[in-house]
Amino acid sequence: MKSLLFHCKDFGSVITGLSTRPDDMVHGDILDEKQSAHNCILAFVTIEKGDAIEKSSELVQEIYKFCKDTDHNNVFLCPFAHLSNSLASAKDALVILEKIVNELKTSDINLTEGHFGSDKELLIHLYGHPGNARYREF
Amino acid sequence: MKSLLFHCKDFGSVITGLSTRPDDMVHGDILDEKQSAHNCILAFVTIEKGDAIEKSSELVQEIYKFCKDTDHNNVFLCPFAHLSNSLASAKDALVILEKIVNELKTSDINLTEGHFGSDKELLIHLYGHPGNARYREF
Repeated sequence: MKSLLFHCKDFGSVITGLSTRPDDMVHGDILDEKQSAHNCILAFVTIEKGDAIEKSSELVQEIYKFCKDTDHNNVFLCPFAHLSNSLASAKDALVILEKIVNELKTSDINLTEGHFGSDKELLIHLYGHPGNARYREF
Repeated sequence: MKSLLFHCKDFGSVITGLSTRPDDMVHGDILDEKQSAHNCILAFVTIEKGDAIEKSSELVQEIYKFCKDTDHNNVFLCPFAHLSNSLASAKDALVILEKIVNELKTSDINLTEGHFGSDKELLIHLYGHPGNARYREF
């Protein structure tokens, strides 16, 4: 599991189509084609082959820490296939992502869930302070 | 060496301060505090411990391919410390980045070089087509 965490002034995502790769792709339900968040922690998350579901808690702790450090409680969780060349199957990834979502929902986090399995136009506006971007492996 | 390549409508970068970490940080010269590119390939590049300088050519080929696929020749090369937990020393990274820059300059690429060793406010606007983001390890 890998994650790239950004402290964003603004983040916007527009679904432009459903991914057709890899062959085992399973698409999550699309609730909102357009999503955005302001003053948020953007968490790009890549689930890899062999990831243990328990590792989700370590990511959640990192997200909490970043929220505390920045004094925000808005989180945009964005499934992202571009931090590894060893991706889990879509089915396995969705199980772990659901666990992460459920853990984040037990707190006072204001969570926006990005869609799994789609192409997206993204607008990412990062703050410029030290520590605005954090890379984590679990 | 790792790279995250984005096909961007727009990319903007503003230097907000010089990085103080890691301890061996060496700062490149600041030519422009504010930089931007339009219809470009944004190449975030992380140089890792033990990277062979010859690997730079493989990255350059990937950048050329992305330019060809998108019919653009604008490239923003952005040193990025957030794709690995095993970073090369600043001194070693600068040698390899210089090689990448020199290789890109031998072509018809319209290159913008991001600064090495600074905190930056970033605005990244990605196109939404399939293949808008590519992750590569060399």
